Amino acid sequence: MTNMNAAVFTGPGRIVLGRKPIPRAGPGEAIVKITMTTICGTDVHILKGEYPVADGLTIGHEPVGTIAELGAGVTGYTIGQRVVAGAICPCGQCFSCLDGHQAQCGGHPIGGWRFGNTIDGCQAEYVRVPFAMANLAPIPDGLSDEQVLMCPDIMSTGFGGAENGGIRIGDTVAVFAQGPIGLCATAGARLRGASRIIAVDKLPERLAMARRLGADHVIDYSARDPVEEILRLTDGQGADVAIEALGTQQTFESCLRCLRPGGTLSSLGVYSGKLTLPIDAFAAGLGDHRIVTTLCPGGKERMRRLMNIVASGRLDLKPLVTHRFRLEQIEEAYELFANQRDGVLKVAVVP
Amino acid sequence: MTNMNAAVFTGPGRIVLGRKPIPRAGPGEAIVKITMTTICGTDVHILKGEYPVADGLTIGHEPVGTIAELGAGVTGYTIGQRVVAGAICPCGQCFSCLDGHQAQCGGHPIGGWRFGNTIDGCQAEYVRVPFAMANLAPIPDGLSDEQVLMCPDIMSTGFGGAENGGIRIGDTVAVFAQGPIGLCATAGARLRGASRIIAVDKLPERLAMARRLGADHVIDYSARDPVEEILRLTDGQGADVAIEALGTQQTFESCLRCLRPGGTLSSLGVYSGKLTLPIDAFAAGLGDHRIVTTLCPGGKERMRRLMNIVASGRLDLKPLVTHRFRLEQIEEAYELFANQRDGVLKVAVVP
Amino acid sequence: MTNMNAAVFTGPGRIVLGRKPIPRAGPGEAIVKITMTTICGTDVHILKGEYPVADGLTIGHEPVGTIAELGAGVTGYTIGQRVVAGAICPCGQCFSCLDGHQAQCGGHPIGGWRFGNTIDGCQAEYVRVPFAMANLAPIPDGLSDEQVLMCPDIMSTGFGGAENGGIRIGDTVAVFAQGPIGLCATAGARLRGASRIIAVDKLPERLAMARRLGADHVIDYSARDPVEEILRLTDGQGADVAIEALGTQQTFESCLRCLRPGGTLSSLGVYSGKLTLPIDAFAAGLGDHRIVTTLCPGGKERMRRLMNIVASGRLDLKPLVTHRFRLEQIEEAYELFANQRDGVLKVAVVP
Amino acid sequence: MTNMNAAVFTGPGRIVLGRKPIPRAGPGEAIVKITMTTICGTDVHILKGEYPVADGLTIGHEPVGTIAELGAGVTGYTIGQRVVAGAICPCGQCFSCLDGHQAQCGGHPIGGWRFGNTIDGCQAEYVRVPFAMANLAPIPDGLSDEQVLMCPDIMSTGFGGAENGGIRIGDTVAVFAQGPIGLCATAGARLRGASRIIAVDKLPERLAMARRLGADHVIDYSARDPVEEILRLTDGQGADVAIEALGTQQTFESCLRCLRPGGTLSSLGVYSGKLTLPIDAFAAGLGDHRIVTTLCPGGKERMRRLMNIVASGRLDLKPLVTHRFRLEQIEEAYELFANQRDGVLKVAVVP
Repeated sequence: MTNMNAAVFTGPGRIVLGRKPIPRAGPGEAIVKITMTTICGTDVHILKGEYPVADGLTIGHEPVGTIAELGAGVTGYTIGQRVVAGAICPCGQCFSCLDGHQAQCGGHPIGGWRFGNTIDGCQAEYVRVPFAMANLAPIPDGLSDEQVLMCPDIMSTGFGGAENGGIRIGDTVAVFAQGPIGLCATAGARLRGASRIIAVDKLPERLAMARRLGADHVIDYSARDPVEEILRLTDGQGADVAIEALGTQQTFESCLRCLRPGGTLSSLGVYSGKLTLPIDAFAAGLGDHRIVTTLCPGGKERMRRLMNIVASGRLDLKPLVTHRFRLEQIEEAYELFANQRDGVLKVAVVP
Repeated sequence: MTNMNAAVFTGPGRIVLGRKPIPRAGPGEAIVKITMTTICGTDVHILKGEYPVADGLTIGHEPVGTIAELGAGVTGYTIGQRVVAGAICPCGQCFSCLDGHQAQCGGHPIGGWRFGNTIDGCQAEYVRVPFAMANLAPIPDGLSDEQVLMCPDIMSTGFGGAENGGIRIGDTVAVFAQGPIGLCATAGARLRGASRIIAVDKLPERLAMARRLGADHVIDYSARDPVEEILRLTDGQGADVAIEALGTQQTFESCLRCLRPGGTLSSLGVYSGKLTLPIDAFAAGLGDHRIVTTLCPGGKERMRRLMNIVASGRLDLKPLVTHRFRLEQIEEAYELFANQRDGVLKVAVVP
Repeated sequence: MTNMNAAVFTGPGRIVLGRKPIPRAGPGEAIVKITMTTICGTDVHILKGEYPVADGLTIGHEPVGTIAELGAGVTGYTIGQRVVAGAICPCGQCFSCLDGHQAQCGGHPIGGWRFGNTIDGCQAEYVRVPFAMANLAPIPDGLSDEQVLMCPDIMSTGFGGAENGGIRIGDTVAVFAQGPIGLCATAGARLRGASRIIAVDKLPERLAMARRLGADHVIDYSARDPVEEILRLTDGQGADVAIEALGTQQTFESCLRCLRPGGTLSSLGVYSGKLTLPIDAFAAGLGDHRIVTTLCPGGKERMRRLMNIVASGRLDLKPLVTHRFRLEQIEEAYELFANQRDGVLKVAVVP
Repeated sequence: MTNMNAAVFTGPGRIVLGRKPIPRAGPGEAIVKITMTTICGTDVHILKGEYPVADGLTIGHEPVGTIAELGAGVTGYTIGQRVVAGAICPCGQCFSCLDGHQAQCGGHPIGGWRFGNTIDGCQAEYVRVPFAMANLAPIPDGLSDEQVLMCPDIMSTGFGGAENGGIRIGDTVAVFAQGPIGLCATAGARLRGASRIIAVDKLPERLAMARRLGADHVIDYSARDPVEEILRLTDGQGADVAIEALGTQQTFESCLRCLRPGGTLSSLGVYSGKLTLPIDAFAAGLGDHRIVTTLCPGGKERMRRLMNIVASGRLDLKPLVTHRFRLEQIEEAYELFANQRDGVLKVAVVP
């Protein structure tokens, strides 16, 4: 057997099931047999042609699987070992990695996001993992594929938004949008000790999930103005930290407007077009806000800590998996996920 | 009525119920009518003559009460308002406060700990609060005295140990000693996102309480060597952060020995005599550890955030209150607490 | 004598020399006899009606002088003592101050900037200093008024931009605009250990002054594109930190465009109107930049450290004082300064 | 030619010139032809048998040279390119490296210090560099070998002590001992913006060099008590940061005793035997100090920034090179350096 199934981008609007050769591991690389993967909102941007990738590329950057092959120089692992790798695969050895910006591995304009972006991704039976020593994280005994499926991307990104926001014990945190990443940001705010987490969305099932993952208040922005409501809940003071997890002008601006002076806007969204800073809510308002952005932190050390959280039972993200598909059904899976039908949050895809 | 009851230090071994004039508020000060207070391990050090205070001083630094009088210039409060103040009362205006070391308010050798140390404390019917604007924190509606009784000291100190330790999401944290402060450090480690918290003590009831407040593993150090056990639980790597909450050579040294290279020892204990750094576990072992110490952070902003945590329902510290006394019974309360009888953790004292 | 000269705002376009009663010190306050002050770019915004203040207000927020009166409760100072106070006067005791955001003292929308904004300022013979204990910083022996004249605002702000940018030893730092604050940011970048400081402006005398204060390269943006030039100087990598010190869309955007991935934009400018974030240079470009803003840090501890720098001889900011006026000439001083005539950088004004 | 000269440890007291095969590069490795190297105080510990290494090991961990061979997979470099590598060679891909503790690369007990410790070092004609991609830093044009000779170890370590001490602009910093690392700590404190640097030693030539590198005050501890003197210079407040650069009980304790409450002890020394924390100067004195330790940070990104400082002309460390030897004279060089004869600070050794 030398060929495999893979979800292949063949032009805007088309991600199709195709056949490709099973990849082989070069020096420092590994081949992982995928046992479960998922679709990300970024994949939908690719599908729609909003984010350019090469024709013929295999999509997907959230791999869970077993080691099928180890390239020259990769030690400390065994064939058949269960592993995850982060969505972003840092080399650990370039200037960006060594100065602590692993998501920028390799420098501009490539960066460390490789799977389903610059190399074949993991919506396939097998994936080649570059810099395997830095990226393969063994799955702790007793955890299922579905339990760790969120670690490679949305858990790392969402928690990262909470961590980079500098949340202190007892802070009030607003999280704008409760899609998969926003929900993880909500859970992450809980893990950092926020005392009041205010989740904003309009879909009742997402707001319900936000409550389940740690939100103390939920605001349906289609019914009420979230900025006003957050100011009301904080006696006019504003939130200490606001996390943006959608990528629109409106949510970005609302984050700034609901912050207390000196607060932090932690931005996770991927914006399209121009973004306008409302000056009256920013520096000229003498508010000395901070704006931080987070790309999905990768590397095996990060993955290990995230899986430790899963293993601890602190947090159960399995409910985010609302639908399950075989890899053969990948086109159907995209159709459902891209159109946010049937209350979908995340899908599990099994080759 | 011009006199009141107060717990007065009258020499080593003697803290007795006495009568004192009710204090009056000078400019910038307030008088708080105590509705509940408690005894701290530090008070026992005073009782035993191990920490020197003036003869005739009223003891106690954990006030919960209502505002009875506001001095000139104290605005934004009302008589009768329910408040707490931290054990340490920063002025907010000296060099130490302005550079962020509020616990060192006033500089060496006085520092910001005043209640029951340099001025009359709050094991009394009334207490005078200096720098009232910086220190009086209104109690949120719906919280009982007992719910906020731990905020002024042990919650602030214990959480501070977790915060200053730099715990990251997914870290392993060891907490040595599960007295009231250690238990709060355990709860604080949980609030900061540790994935595995290892609590060490020898008393079964304290280890049981540690589990209740967030510990994943407990180690009875009278039965097993805690350093070996922590190394075993971490596959020989060691803990990311170790919190010392007792103040002995053995616990300090064990903290260093159970840390991973590059880990942080967060020290809360008040040590007696000399403390020896085991060099082979420290720098010469090329381990580049960090040692941080925390004094109970005070000020109304800190108190507000701690009470927010209580109000959120994240954490219930009421079970720490194992015994209740009237102020008239203060000598009996000290007798029980100082000797750690009847499984006592904290006592509530009501004037 | 009960009246004094003062520079009074009497409507857009009019700051005139007027007569006012000499202020008296209330509790916690002090009166400082001004021996030297200066005009800030913000004062010009006020003059032009771009930043609203009350009619009749005395302008100016950079006081150097001697203590003329101490209000009740102000201790540790003596009449006649030489002091400075920061442009922003924190109380030290409100929620904002206690959580480390002293520039936001008092909360939104007032903030801690009071002199010449919400209370009478210091372009006068006397000024009333609120929260005197937190704000009066004694001038070290041997320093002249002119040597410490920059401490209250531009030195604190400019250095703050360098400090908040997180400059590391050996970093490349670009500073956009070399007005007084930008020049101080250049000097601050030097003080934090940047190895290559690139100063951008178009005025030859400002670029020359930038070199004198620590810039390694200067770019005349009227002759060359500064973003291209910075990328060229950094072999296409971009600067580690970019400091914005003008407050325009163009400089803000140029800062983002000249940064390396993962770099920090430290914003000092006061912007007018809308500010647009160029998305392709921001998060959607997967660059995970950080944007921080700084308001002039105040308080006597800050002032002490800044005057220590002056006393050390590390840095001589006296050359920034290009013109000198008597307070009686204040209208002439504004005319020169507002129109940036005669190569003016800062003016010294002596009552 | 297949053999080369090398300084070989052959037992306590004996580092001798020997002959060894020229090493070859395996995958990911490089061979560097040494053009200049030096001797470190740690090498003297090895010589004296105080730090154990294998018999027959080549000593030395401060390489400057040209690339002689590149192993498989090492890209982006050319044969003949001039490079340095840090004393510590992180892999960039293990758990320690990925969580930012590159000096702990590989974990306990090995760590990232390899040259002249776990593998052959660079007091030789050639050295094999592991993880070449992470460690080889090209030397900027125009810098001589001698100009960058301090980068691999003492500059990185000494500056690291200043950086980890958290020096702020305007701080007072005391540096205990002015050997090569202490002198670099003094220079590093200057680079971070300290306004007053107090250097302590007893040798006049070292105190003179300290002044040359940035010290504002020097204290000969054989003539005066340095703690008293530092307290006197700071009006009894104490230093903000104290850097320990010798590794003795006395200097460690003096650092704690001269700190202000809330200050930081940044420890660089390698201690022998037991180290005693004077409790009255530590936590029990309610001083909430912080103690941080630093191992020499390595990796090409660090080396690049250090060489940028050299290239900037900010700092000239060439005067530290007091003596020059040929590799054939290595035994003579050790004899001089180990006995600190002739005012030696650092020696340059040229193969």
